[in-house]
Amino acid sequence: MSNTYPEFIAHIRRYVELSDQDVAILEMYVHPVELKRREYLLKEGEVCRYNYFVEKGCLRMYFYNEKMVEQTTQFALETWWLSDYFSFARQSPSQYYLQAVEKSFVVAIDYSIQDKLFREVPQLEHYFRIMMQRALAASQLRVKMIYQLSKEEMYTHFVTSFPQFFQRVPQYMIASYLGLTPEYMSELRKKR
Amino acid sequence: MSNTYPEFIAHIRRYVELSDQDVAILEMYVHPVELKRREYLLKEGEVCRYNYFVEKGCLRMYFYNEKMVEQTTQFALETWWLSDYFSFARQSPSQYYLQAVEKSFVVAIDYSIQDKLFREVPQLEHYFRIMMQRALAASQLRVKMIYQLSKEEMYTHFVTSFPQFFQRVPQYMIASYLGLTPEYMSELRKKR
Repeated sequence: MSNTYPEFIAHIRRYVELSDQDVAILEMYVHPVELKRREYLLKEGEVCRYNYFVEKGCLRMYFYNEKMVEQTTQFALETWWLSDYFSFARQSPSQYYLQAVEKSFVVAIDYSIQDKLFREVPQLEHYFRIMMQRALAASQLRVKMIYQLSKEEMYTHFVTSFPQFFQRVPQYMIASYLGLTPEYMSELRKKR
Repeated sequence: MSNTYPEFIAHIRRYVELSDQDVAILEMYVHPVELKRREYLLKEGEVCRYNYFVEKGCLRMYFYNEKMVEQTTQFALETWWLSDYFSFARQSPSQYYLQAVEKSFVVAIDYSIQDKLFREVPQLEHYFRIMMQRALAASQLRVKMIYQLSKEEMYTHFVTSFPQFFQRVPQYMIASYLGLTPEYMSELRKKR
């Protein structure tokens, strides 16, 4: 049993078996990051060295559009992984910011030790294959919704599917994620 | 050496080692699909049972929007994998069509035998983890471009990055993928 990362270990064990020794090895390789609200894990131009698991809290990924307005592209709540996978895989500079939306506790896996970790605990390949496939399915769905739904339908879908977001995430971030202006979203909220 | 799927086996070997015996096992588990131009691999409402590797040819994924117009969300050329990963992972009905853009030859892995295959050739977990991560990185980039680029910039980016598409894929499919009307795209083509 892990006392340091209970959600992290429990989540992996939903998909693969981990012996106590595997857990001990895993805990040697990953490291914890405690984040204050609005603290950064990554800024544009930096190389994204880590893949992050949200043990507690909420992260978001965003970039600045041509009007220098923040455009949020992804959120990650508890048990989700988040990284700029392009920058992570190539170890090239990122075009994104990764930020804690609220006080958060995340587990970081360093790109440079990942292969070694997978050799020592090979069942993690399976776990991460499933995690990447799950995130890919979510991303395919995201693209579909952008093309399929009107702004109002996007909002309704989001409110219905993820009501907890509205308690935890500032309105302007959700508006940006949904491609709405904050003013239009506040109109939609009043209508409901 | 595989005579049946040379690209497929060579592609896997770029990422992991496969013995001749591994190749023989793999070839027992996968199956070839020959497609005529415009032939379907999947239609809306069907369960997506397979993950497809493009050995030769080109696939696309699309759905019908509320105006009953085809909206292409993804293409896959040689050495790319394509599937509706939501439908594939849950074995639930798909909202998409998967279609051959041109005469194609693809390699199909059946969802129902995947786990057994991975137990017999475990290094495939690594290969597919990398493939899923690569596709996820591409999908993250796609979302960013949708929000960041104007219609004209989308077009220019696509022409510059993937010139071969314009020789192989009908204009209206590319226009749909880029979120342009066919008329507007043909204007942009004339401008260049």
